[in-house]
Amino acid sequence: MKHSEYGDVSSNHVIVGVLGGMGPDATVAFMQQIIDVTPAEDDIDHIHLLVDNNPKVPSRIKALIDGGNENPGPVIADMARRLEHAGASFLVMPCNTAHYYWQYAQDAVDIPVWHIVELTLNFIARRIPRARVGMLCSPALRKIGLYEGFVDARGLSLVYPDDENSLLEVIRTVKRGEGQHSDTFSAFSRAADDLEVCGADVLVLACTELSVIQGALDTSVPVVDTLQVLAQQVVMTAVGVDASELREQDPIGLFTG
Amino acid sequence: MKHSEYGDVSSNHVIVGVLGGMGPDATVAFMQQIIDVTPAEDDIDHIHLLVDNNPKVPSRIKALIDGGNENPGPVIADMARRLEHAGASFLVMPCNTAHYYWQYAQDAVDIPVWHIVELTLNFIARRIPRARVGMLCSPALRKIGLYEGFVDARGLSLVYPDDENSLLEVIRTVKRGEGQHSDTFSAFSRAADDLEVCGADVLVLACTELSVIQGALDTSVPVVDTLQVLAQQVVMTAVGVDASELREQDPIGLFTG
Repeated sequence: MKHSEYGDVSSNHVIVGVLGGMGPDATVAFMQQIIDVTPAEDDIDHIHLLVDNNPKVPSRIKALIDGGNENPGPVIADMARRLEHAGASFLVMPCNTAHYYWQYAQDAVDIPVWHIVELTLNFIARRIPRARVGMLCSPALRKIGLYEGFVDARGLSLVYPDDENSLLEVIRTVKRGEGQHSDTFSAFSRAADDLEVCGADVLVLACTELSVIQGALDTSVPVVDTLQVLAQQVVMTAVGVDASELREQDPIGLFTG
Repeated sequence: MKHSEYGDVSSNHVIVGVLGGMGPDATVAFMQQIIDVTPAEDDIDHIHLLVDNNPKVPSRIKALIDGGNENPGPVIADMARRLEHAGASFLVMPCNTAHYYWQYAQDAVDIPVWHIVELTLNFIARRIPRARVGMLCSPALRKIGLYEGFVDARGLSLVYPDDENSLLEVIRTVKRGEGQHSDTFSAFSRAADDLEVCGADVLVLACTELSVIQGALDTSVPVVDTLQVLAQQVVMTAVGVDASELREQDPIGLFTG
């Protein structure tokens, strides 16, 4: 991704459009991450975000796994158009699975729609060449092969946990707002352990519901949160700083596990 | 405020427009409060929020206290128009001081713009008739007399802390993202103690930066968070439930102080 593909950020009033609500908690966590890494002395130093936190988008998991007949694509396209019309400079979508419908959004607008998978795998390939990437994600993400299209060109490979249904239950529990319990944390950590045993060099949090409870993970393998990669890139682009100027050093936690 | 004044919420797809970014942390906290009290089993049960998290609105404190010459009113009016155009059913503004410019927003749109002071004082008057209301707020709020216009009709009275500059410093520290320190917490608690000594029956968190650090308050007087009153009313209106059906009982914390 070349710098110009990030959108027109030459004016000093960049508006970041957020295709959100998938789910709503993840969008709020993403907004907080942006605020936390922005170098700021007062309100005015923060980034202008225009957020469509729309939890009424038809379920991606239902459409992709359970065979629901409501296509989320056109709804996401409408949201993209609305944000562009309202003045967004570029769009981001803090949800991995929803990127199955990324083309709907990009086709609907003239501004760039960033791709979370591209950003995440670029980030990893620069730091751990030829990494075997352990995927902490919903079964829907594996089924649609969202990451597969991006790994070969970057010399990376993927590994998924054996027990995907257990991880799906973790995600559903977080969506119900009931994720703060020890059995949820255990199921989450078991999946991470599986991936480590299978030779993962790095773990990717590729489901924003899992990002929300990442504090529960206890693993020696570096963990990359896709939501944080996206937040960090938003701040660097919108404020015009490089990684060393972000408020938190190493906000990605790549080498802090 | 009659129920019809809450806006057209008869369709089952209510979109709540949020005039946000004043400051950005407070807007994110407000969104999280809405999510936390919403009765929900899955994403789709949550409320559709359209959020203009715009930290570039000219400083209200500068305009009202320091004599800055940039008027925030027209910017807030533009934000209101943009949210109405994008489909909002009604508008809310999670910032007390910005309500000085409430009329700009309401004059700019045909949908209702809720008033946080009206909602908060209605809430208190119903629970503690003739209450003496202790104000934890910025000096700007006192100077503009925002609450004064609403108390007489409700049989309430107001009391402010003696040392307002110290509370202003607390607010500025939170805006810098540095509010999680013991000296900030002490200054905040001293202001609450002052109000209790002056006979306050209830304390109102009337500055959203103070809502963010309310966990630091240690007082026997009930505390009402204006941000939480607003969030609770948004959920009751948008979902069509009454207070007993909210996910957290007594989310206002009125009797848990």
